[in-house]
Amino acid sequence: MSRFIVPKFEKFSAYTPGEQPKISDIIKLNTNENPFPPHENSNEKVAEIAKNLNIYNDTECKKLTEVFTTYYGINQKNVIFANGSDEILAFCFLAFCDEKIGVCYPEISYGFYKVFSKLYSINDEKISLNDNFEIDISDYYEKNKTIIIANPNAPTGIALTIGQIEQILQKNPNNVVVIDEAYVDFGANSAIELVEKYENLLISGTFSKSRSLAGTRLGYAIANENLIDDLKKIKNSYNPYNVNTLTQALGVVSIEEDDYYRDCIKKIVETREKFVKKLDKLGFYTLNSKANFIFTKNDKISGKDLYDKLRERNIIVRHFDDVKISDFVRISIGTDVQMDKVILSIQEILEGIYA
Amino acid sequence: MSRFIVPKFEKFSAYTPGEQPKISDIIKLNTNENPFPPHENSNEKVAEIAKNLNIYNDTECKKLTEVFTTYYGINQKNVIFANGSDEILAFCFLAFCDEKIGVCYPEISYGFYKVFSKLYSINDEKISLNDNFEIDISDYYEKNKTIIIANPNAPTGIALTIGQIEQILQKNPNNVVVIDEAYVDFGANSAIELVEKYENLLISGTFSKSRSLAGTRLGYAIANENLIDDLKKIKNSYNPYNVNTLTQALGVVSIEEDDYYRDCIKKIVETREKFVKKLDKLGFYTLNSKANFIFTKNDKISGKDLYDKLRERNIIVRHFDDVKISDFVRISIGTDVQMDKVILSIQEILEGIYA
Repeated sequence: MSRFIVPKFEKFSAYTPGEQPKISDIIKLNTNENPFPPHENSNEKVAEIAKNLNIYNDTECKKLTEVFTTYYGINQKNVIFANGSDEILAFCFLAFCDEKIGVCYPEISYGFYKVFSKLYSINDEKISLNDNFEIDISDYYEKNKTIIIANPNAPTGIALTIGQIEQILQKNPNNVVVIDEAYVDFGANSAIELVEKYENLLISGTFSKSRSLAGTRLGYAIANENLIDDLKKIKNSYNPYNVNTLTQALGVVSIEEDDYYRDCIKKIVETREKFVKKLDKLGFYTLNSKANFIFTKNDKISGKDLYDKLRERNIIVRHFDDVKISDFVRISIGTDVQMDKVILSIQEILEGIYA
Repeated sequence: MSRFIVPKFEKFSAYTPGEQPKISDIIKLNTNENPFPPHENSNEKVAEIAKNLNIYNDTECKKLTEVFTTYYGINQKNVIFANGSDEILAFCFLAFCDEKIGVCYPEISYGFYKVFSKLYSINDEKISLNDNFEIDISDYYEKNKTIIIANPNAPTGIALTIGQIEQILQKNPNNVVVIDEAYVDFGANSAIELVEKYENLLISGTFSKSRSLAGTRLGYAIANENLIDDLKKIKNSYNPYNVNTLTQALGVVSIEEDDYYRDCIKKIVETREKFVKKLDKLGFYTLNSKANFIFTKNDKISGKDLYDKLRERNIIVRHFDDVKISDFVRISIGTDVQMDKVILSIQEILEGIYA
């Protein structure tokens, strides 16, 4: 830290991004990446475009907006893109939260909500999950705060129904409700159909998970035109050129080749279901995941121990220190081959305990 | 605007990014782009990398940091990268300015400094240029504010010397001085050599101009380790994955193929000097530019008129409404062929006035 930093950041501890190991034969199941590459058309597309990168990118993402809104059956005025959905969330904190309008979100959820609250000095209320690690929607009635809920939630993977989200929207007509749909494509239902009806609904989403573009950063918000205008104001005052030309083009390819991505999603969901059944047989308790990861525990071994012993076998999963969920590990769903190796390793680990 | 936006943004007018016309036979000299494409190796590089975009990008930009710091002869701890230098500047406003520590910058300079001041509600002092449109360094002594100076300045193109920058640094030991070197490679001297000596110096730079990567967004800050740590704290709390994999790789290629870019810069500078001489002969008064654009005026025609009449001829330059500089137009330096067409058009326009 320098002696020049403004006082509010003096005691600020930086967020540490998740481990990105460089060992080549590792099975990396710690950051919920898609095990399948982007569609092969992506390669030639970016090679072609690279020739024109001396020219600025389109700040309005026109082509991407066209194909995206056609795909989702929404109006072009209902969407904005950003440099990953983290940036969408950052814009939401700036636009819809201040010292008076605080924010609330589930205590156990995406870790970045806490970080944004600190960054922008926003009062944040962290609402407990129930004993089954579910969001109790009645805890979100009449909050008088901006609300952020990941659906499916992370790291639990548990999803709310559209009806439940509608309840929350109706009970908070004067506050923005952000539904973070980063993982929605793996089995939950998107709230997009509610955007026309509820002016307080803002959906954030990402191309990182179901569209295999984590490395190129593309996020979006879908909401009524006025909310989108608010975010555009922030974006254009922060970094109007935030979505680069290559990323815009890759987003277009991913929608044009949607069948490929639907197939990949189908495989991931099938792998998840098989994997959970095998974990069941090994005595695990796994939450009902609608995401591309599962959250699981076994009374025979602590979450930290399982994490460590998998790490020794070059399998990286995620463990959270938070006492309420420290029994669990979060495991991203890779290919069948990868998950079979995980099962074998877990069997070995459990057998080792009794040996 | 929605009724949900926080009060401080209610009367906030959005920044409007410059015109990006889609007409194909236009000569686009309004946003200071490099007329030459990125090195041809860029194409295959991005095609190869696109296969792995399902995996997250490296938040620490390790490879890029290695080649960049070797190139500039600095320590790896002295640099941070971001999604364009606009994002570097946004991080600087958050880290080094607040209600108490205001900011000052030249009244006539890069338009975004005003926008950031508004976005973060920072008190900004706009310091006049002298009658020759130069920065008078004594106006920047003992400011007790964060200082931002573009060197060369925009839209004038006039540069300060390293000695002048050192004066400003010495007279403001307790405040950060940001030197925005977006255009430094076209004839000015970088202050990088001062970084070791002055803990209050922060240099921001971009790959958009001299490295032909406007469309892929890559900016950097060079400063002593403590200032860089401050910016890393902000980055990691805002968007740790802000520089995507393709952009990092293109940055690496641009340094590996440095000779190509030096050649392009040489051509641009030669074209600029020829262009200015031709303008001289047509009665123009042109400021002494060390950038890839020139700022010029002619008593026979107003800046707005010249802009409009060039626009009719499919040549887009930039005109600023500000009364102090409304006589001028800013013209980016393209290829020789493009600039010859501009000269011909200007001749026609001037002849038309007397017809």
